[in-house]
Amino acid sequence: MSTALFDYYQTNRERHLEGLLQLLRIPSISTLPEHKPDIRRAAEFLANELREMGMKNVEIIAGKENQHPLVYAEWLEALGKPTLLIYGHYDVQPADPLEEWVSPPFEPAIRNDNIYARGAVDDKGQVYLLCKALEGFFKTQGKLPINVRVLIEGEEEVGGEHIDEYVAAHPDRLKADAALVCDTEMFAPELPTITTGLRGLVYTELEARAAAHDLHSGQYGGAAPNPMQALAEMINRLKGPDGKILIPGFYKRVKKPTAQELASWKRLPFNEKNFMKKEIGTTALVGEKGFSVLERLWARPTLEVHGFRGGFTGEGAKTVIPAASTAKISMRLVPDMNPKEVFRLYSAYVKKITPKGIRTSVRVLSSAPASVVSTDSRWIAAGAEAMEQVFKKKTVFMRSGGSIPIVGTFQRCLKIPSVMMGFGLPDDNLHAPNEKFHIPNFYRGIEAVGRYLELLAQ
Amino acid sequence: MSTALFDYYQTNRERHLEGLLQLLRIPSISTLPEHKPDIRRAAEFLANELREMGMKNVEIIAGKENQHPLVYAEWLEALGKPTLLIYGHYDVQPADPLEEWVSPPFEPAIRNDNIYARGAVDDKGQVYLLCKALEGFFKTQGKLPINVRVLIEGEEEVGGEHIDEYVAAHPDRLKADAALVCDTEMFAPELPTITTGLRGLVYTELEARAAAHDLHSGQYGGAAPNPMQALAEMINRLKGPDGKILIPGFYKRVKKPTAQELASWKRLPFNEKNFMKKEIGTTALVGEKGFSVLERLWARPTLEVHGFRGGFTGEGAKTVIPAASTAKISMRLVPDMNPKEVFRLYSAYVKKITPKGIRTSVRVLSSAPASVVSTDSRWIAAGAEAMEQVFKKKTVFMRSGGSIPIVGTFQRCLKIPSVMMGFGLPDDNLHAPNEKFHIPNFYRGIEAVGRYLELLAQ
Repeated sequence: MSTALFDYYQTNRERHLEGLLQLLRIPSISTLPEHKPDIRRAAEFLANELREMGMKNVEIIAGKENQHPLVYAEWLEALGKPTLLIYGHYDVQPADPLEEWVSPPFEPAIRNDNIYARGAVDDKGQVYLLCKALEGFFKTQGKLPINVRVLIEGEEEVGGEHIDEYVAAHPDRLKADAALVCDTEMFAPELPTITTGLRGLVYTELEARAAAHDLHSGQYGGAAPNPMQALAEMINRLKGPDGKILIPGFYKRVKKPTAQELASWKRLPFNEKNFMKKEIGTTALVGEKGFSVLERLWARPTLEVHGFRGGFTGEGAKTVIPAASTAKISMRLVPDMNPKEVFRLYSAYVKKITPKGIRTSVRVLSSAPASVVSTDSRWIAAGAEAMEQVFKKKTVFMRSGGSIPIVGTFQRCLKIPSVMMGFGLPDDNLHAPNEKFHIPNFYRGIEAVGRYLELLAQ
Repeated sequence: MSTALFDYYQTNRERHLEGLLQLLRIPSISTLPEHKPDIRRAAEFLANELREMGMKNVEIIAGKENQHPLVYAEWLEALGKPTLLIYGHYDVQPADPLEEWVSPPFEPAIRNDNIYARGAVDDKGQVYLLCKALEGFFKTQGKLPINVRVLIEGEEEVGGEHIDEYVAAHPDRLKADAALVCDTEMFAPELPTITTGLRGLVYTELEARAAAHDLHSGQYGGAAPNPMQALAEMINRLKGPDGKILIPGFYKRVKKPTAQELASWKRLPFNEKNFMKKEIGTTALVGEKGFSVLERLWARPTLEVHGFRGGFTGEGAKTVIPAASTAKISMRLVPDMNPKEVFRLYSAYVKKITPKGIRTSVRVLSSAPASVVSTDSRWIAAGAEAMEQVFKKKTVFMRSGGSIPIVGTFQRCLKIPSVMMGFGLPDDNLHAPNEKFHIPNFYRGIEAVGRYLELLAQ
């Protein structure tokens, strides 16, 4: 890293931390309407930061009524250099249960080298380190080493569609060579990590209908079809006790991770017993035989039941055979499964296994393909090198079992890969009380992103 | 029937109907606290009727706070004659949805020989016909032909415990040879019917716990145990798709109905297609092979799932693997199954089929044995004869798949059989809008009960 830039990052640490504390004091909870003014304040706070450091065309994009604004900025004067699209989100999860917080969620407190506050790591700390990394270049060189667009949203925690709509509608304005997404975590403390893959999702509702109206189980039990019993039967035929999904053709497009990827996962410091007992708190793990836990989580599709609607769920006993019941069932997808095809196979199989006397219908509630970036990509390679130089340790590659929809959107609408450099830690309590961000990772994040831009300029 | 009694019943029809309309105008809904004064009014209305006709020791038994009163009356001057305990209830179900009533639920209206009102058949019409039957004897003979105790409750529709507690505490005061319960229906119009058996019940909650806290299905799906999937698996192992319950030992005490009983059920005018399509509204019936529909409903035990608690059931998609989920599961019992033993077998089997990584617990919410009265019993035989003489048709015997807890209570605490003479019709809309009572059945009910008392005196 250039000496001037390095020195700037070092000597401004206290000021950078102070800036982050200000951003964390804004309770920009996206799901609660009463916090709409705070959402606006957080967006303006970041727009000001970007404007003051020297970014151009800084804009707060309001969107439709009830949508939260996007913050956009660009600097495109690095002729002949690549363009990076930088993504983050300024909205946060609600803070309840409040009584479990050691210090109030919107009065950031520092203890043991951590900042405790709602949004500390998810994602304000990571958004702010991106800003400070850019600021360093303007302050020391008057310019950025590459072209940069910044797009920060305020609806990530509510699955809002503003950013999707905007990206789909403005592929030219957002034209870039790659995206940098800072909204993930490191595999373990001190272990620089890039996330190279995400699972996709097909989330469905499966409704089973039997009688024309609710029935009394005394009067009709033994002859009338029961839609809850039917759903239980069908779920058993969708996934066996061995974790194998029984939908014909379900696995046919599943692509194995590369040998290198598998080998690198084996080297990760993963303790299965700790994962089971401490992280999950159970006595046994489940899943497909012949695959390691990390493979099952990152590289194998799965099917889960999330809830049953219908019937009686109150206190006490009600002897009802409900007329209808609905199960929420999702499937996580891996490359190269096609969500549309998966839903088609699922629907056809559901029809086939519907017990007699039952009418079923399925609908899809959300759907996204898996995404994976090759570790050979120059965008990933530079990210790995930048992190390695800052953390003084070899960067590891992991995948995530979850989905970050924006990564799919960038891929689909802009045709660009996303580099997921994350600086969170596994115990940072995302979405939970006492969310934190490890302060050394905040500083190293600034440096790693600064170094990444330098490397991309070479 | 004695001519004087017959004439009395005939000439007082209009007055009897008018009295019933008065009782039906009292909205004695037991589940709604704001109707507490109406509950009291209905109890007083009946106490007055009983007192005025000549019954002795008429008493309104208040019970504990929040309990609804019992109405008690007795007349015990028929030396050497048997004693009959007459049961009914004066409370009714709520009337909603109100907009579906053709005439207001508490403004009884007469259309096509039916009285439409909430409580018309369940159970005010049947309670009132019992009173009018007794009144006829006092008015024409100044006495009853047998000894009679009357016990009417106000908590039947809410499953209240007042009457159970009272019967258990006062076996001497309630000493009788048999009970007469008028709270059932006829198998078909014009077909005099006595219900001779009821199924018992073991209603349970089965809880499955997995992780220490809710998990994100993206992050953990494929390795973490899912309690909803586990419950679906277990339900499949409790009851097969063929309706067979798989709990070891479950069927061992099941007693077949007698050959006569089975033969009599075969003669009942039962149309399986109508039952399936019109009554239930489905395309196929389910249940154990080798048993007729009526056998499956009345003489075979069953197991039903009523609801699942836990997980996500709101609108939209939430990718949660819940830490715990609870299923409501009940079993209907037939003679001679023992509820305690059934629960023991169930609990042991649940433990055995609990999948790895899951901790289960079961608890029983309510429990009652099946009951059956022999059609040879003199109490039943006299009832059948009385109904036959009034309806001019042979009385049929049916069972019911449901439970009437008071019948078990009388059996257990007083050691007496219950004779269930019912005058409702299958389409009387119990618990639903436009509840009705067929007026000719009200009159025939008065006569049949009068004749029953005469026969018991012989």
